[in-house]
Amino acid sequence: MQDVRGPPVKLLLAEASLELIPPEIWDEPDVRAYCRKRKKSPRWTLLDSSYHHRAMRKLSGTEKRGRPDIVHVTLLEALGSPLNLEGMLEVHVHTLSGHWIRIDPSTRLPRVYDRFKGLMEALLKEGKVVTEDGKVLLQSERRSFGEVLQELGKHPVVLLHESGEEMSDPVLEGLLGAGGLILVVGCFPHGDFSREVLEAADVRLRVHGQRLDAWVATSRALCSLERLLLRKT
Amino acid sequence: MQDVRGPPVKLLLAEASLELIPPEIWDEPDVRAYCRKRKKSPRWTLLDSSYHHRAMRKLSGTEKRGRPDIVHVTLLEALGSPLNLEGMLEVHVHTLSGHWIRIDPSTRLPRVYDRFKGLMEALLKEGKVVTEDGKVLLQSERRSFGEVLQELGKHPVVLLHESGEEMSDPVLEGLLGAGGLILVVGCFPHGDFSREVLEAADVRLRVHGQRLDAWVATSRALCSLERLLLRKT
Repeated sequence: MQDVRGPPVKLLLAEASLELIPPEIWDEPDVRAYCRKRKKSPRWTLLDSSYHHRAMRKLSGTEKRGRPDIVHVTLLEALGSPLNLEGMLEVHVHTLSGHWIRIDPSTRLPRVYDRFKGLMEALLKEGKVVTEDGKVLLQSERRSFGEVLQELGKHPVVLLHESGEEMSDPVLEGLLGAGGLILVVGCFPHGDFSREVLEAADVRLRVHGQRLDAWVATSRALCSLERLLLRKT
Repeated sequence: MQDVRGPPVKLLLAEASLELIPPEIWDEPDVRAYCRKRKKSPRWTLLDSSYHHRAMRKLSGTEKRGRPDIVHVTLLEALGSPLNLEGMLEVHVHTLSGHWIRIDPSTRLPRVYDRFKGLMEALLKEGKVVTEDGKVLLQSERRSFGEVLQELGKHPVVLLHESGEEMSDPVLEGLLGAGGLILVVGCFPHGDFSREVLEAADVRLRVHGQRLDAWVATSRALCSLERLLLRKT
């Protein structure tokens, strides 16, 4: 049974590369063609560097932007994890554009990428996604990274980073000791975390000597936590 | 360094739900509309239950068919794994339709689902995918499951299955002892393995008490193997 503080592991996908197309490129030819084909308004369409590559040259900070596929695969990995199936994981996303997305652990995300994008577009437009019987599966609101950390409670903030100390059972046990931890994983394609995220971390841990895809880093950290948490219960 | 027998772990995604649209439904309305929109011939288009659901009612064994997204996410997970990055993994796919697909470990698959499907369609049409400088990244040929196992060599065949013995370090070490193992993971959405696959397994191991998504099962097994193999090297 969970205690009143909730699941022991809170996963926070940070600087997630998921945002609506910004107004300054709504009129670019590749954006217009893409939206026309899909019968959508650019205002309520996700930025996707696979399709809006040319238009994105007009934006700043593009090395981290326009990759909702990273968020999709990483969420599939996290929501399907044994830790989540056993009720010991809470999944949050904080996007580069400043949205905090909370995901009910029972959510079955669309497996197909286009449908995932459609769901995220609806979420960012409406602020929530609700089932037919009224259960809130997804919620989105604007929050800073620091505000989200405060909401998640006073647990150690563990940042996955290839410069960190090697992740080991004793290190994780020490961090979990006080009742739980917040695991922060970057969900952007290139570049490093912002200073705000780096400075918010209590400890940096690495799962491998070189940079890993976000979904691989997530699965390895969850796998190590499962070894500690699921064998004790 | 690898020995002459190749990497110690051979991952075989079995009964993979990836096939071209079969002739008996080429003329179904949803297949025709889908192919017309994408300007493709049904003959060289992947079956996808998200889009061909209605037409698939005319096929047999549909509970396992038409889910190339499962193969996509599982391959992203395997090719990005530390074990693969360290040259200790070989990745193979055997499809429900009887194709053996070999994947060069340096392959960077398309991250976007539609492009992955386009790549697989080209592979099944041409038999291989080659880089501009002549390197073969992907190869496909018709083979039975038994023939593929023979090609992979005389290693223990380990089937991930929720009915199996719990995967533990001593069990894996024993299986690896003789020089390597073949890890078989199901890549279909529902139902059980065929009798042929079940009977080919030397041992069944489980990573969790309930059925997991193929990519989660794969990441957990690779994570356990990495703990054993990457710390020793």
